[in-house]
Amino acid sequence: MADQKVIMDISMSLDGYIAGPNDGPGNGLGDGGEELHEWAYDLAAFREPHGQEGGAINEDSKMLEEAMNRPGAIICGKRMFENAEGWGDNPPFHKPVFILTHENLEPLEKEGSTTFTFVSGIENALEQAKDAAAGKDVAIGGGADTVQQFIEAGLLDEMRIHIAPLILGGGVRLFDHVSPGRLEKTRVVDSELVTHITYRFVR
Amino acid sequence: MADQKVIMDISMSLDGYIAGPNDGPGNGLGDGGEELHEWAYDLAAFREPHGQEGGAINEDSKMLEEAMNRPGAIICGKRMFENAEGWGDNPPFHKPVFILTHENLEPLEKEGSTTFTFVSGIENALEQAKDAAAGKDVAIGGGADTVQQFIEAGLLDEMRIHIAPLILGGGVRLFDHVSPGRLEKTRVVDSELVTHITYRFVR
Repeated sequence: MADQKVIMDISMSLDGYIAGPNDGPGNGLGDGGEELHEWAYDLAAFREPHGQEGGAINEDSKMLEEAMNRPGAIICGKRMFENAEGWGDNPPFHKPVFILTHENLEPLEKEGSTTFTFVSGIENALEQAKDAAAGKDVAIGGGADTVQQFIEAGLLDEMRIHIAPLILGGGVRLFDHVSPGRLEKTRVVDSELVTHITYRFVR
Repeated sequence: MADQKVIMDISMSLDGYIAGPNDGPGNGLGDGGEELHEWAYDLAAFREPHGQEGGAINEDSKMLEEAMNRPGAIICGKRMFENAEGWGDNPPFHKPVFILTHENLEPLEKEGSTTFTFVSGIENALEQAKDAAAGKDVAIGGGADTVQQFIEAGLLDEMRIHIAPLILGGGVRLFDHVSPGRLEKTRVVDSELVTHITYRFVR
């Protein structure tokens, strides 16, 4: 499993926010934050895992399909889990999801093959997620705190940022509390709404 | 002159900084900030106006040539002027430059056709710069305060951001104090080091 990568796909405003102000339960993306993901909502690749039919197939589709299909397991923070209210009865992941928390909670099995396992500590979460991913990559799902912990620990290999043509002016920043560093840009895909840039962390 | 545009070309780190920490006279780009402009230093289009010979010609050249040739006049903040220590005897602009300040200062005429005129207020500066540009566009040269004032006043038409694959972790943010808004992405040019994205302000 040495070639399993730790990856991340995230939509960010031009001013560096991944959620608007006042994020919380029922408002997981914060005020105005839904616009960050506007490029994805109408795609067939978004609608299908959310149980909807139809939708567009274009340059963005490939990016979203890669984001959804490449990882065999996902790691998210507990706050994100709570803000999304557990993603309902049939979450869009359809794979094992590991939720970082110091609470001792029983695993949750949802419809559509999504399982939530609650784990403490990023190294521990990563080990379990790599096992569960069965040779596929592991994605960091967010939120910002979780992403920042993985970056600071040198555990993130690659990230793809979908840069939305928005100024949010406030909210949750992707790169707060992250130490200076250099990345290697490996791929750029432009689409009508956003610019998808893939970076590899240089160590 | 109704088709004169107010434009800006600026290099920004992935975490939104256009200068590193501790910027000041003699350290105009702040600690680590020079890396933001790494994509430009070796270009013939950069070396020539700086009085050096040779240099590379590539995808980045076109971006830099446009940034340098499109404007007929430039507006900068006084702090930037001071941090750059007036750009020496032969500044790289070779055109009229208007420096925003409330001080009453005499114009400076430098070698190589760069003139510095000191003006108070962004509307006033823009009016004078448009006249001096003789039909060409007016560029906002920076720093961040000046750019933010122009954006907030709705006076910036277009900006091209050169996104450098860097996390600076601190310094001067491009979009601090800017109100939420939507932009139109009009052009993306990828090069080895950076991604050049052009946005138009939607009003």
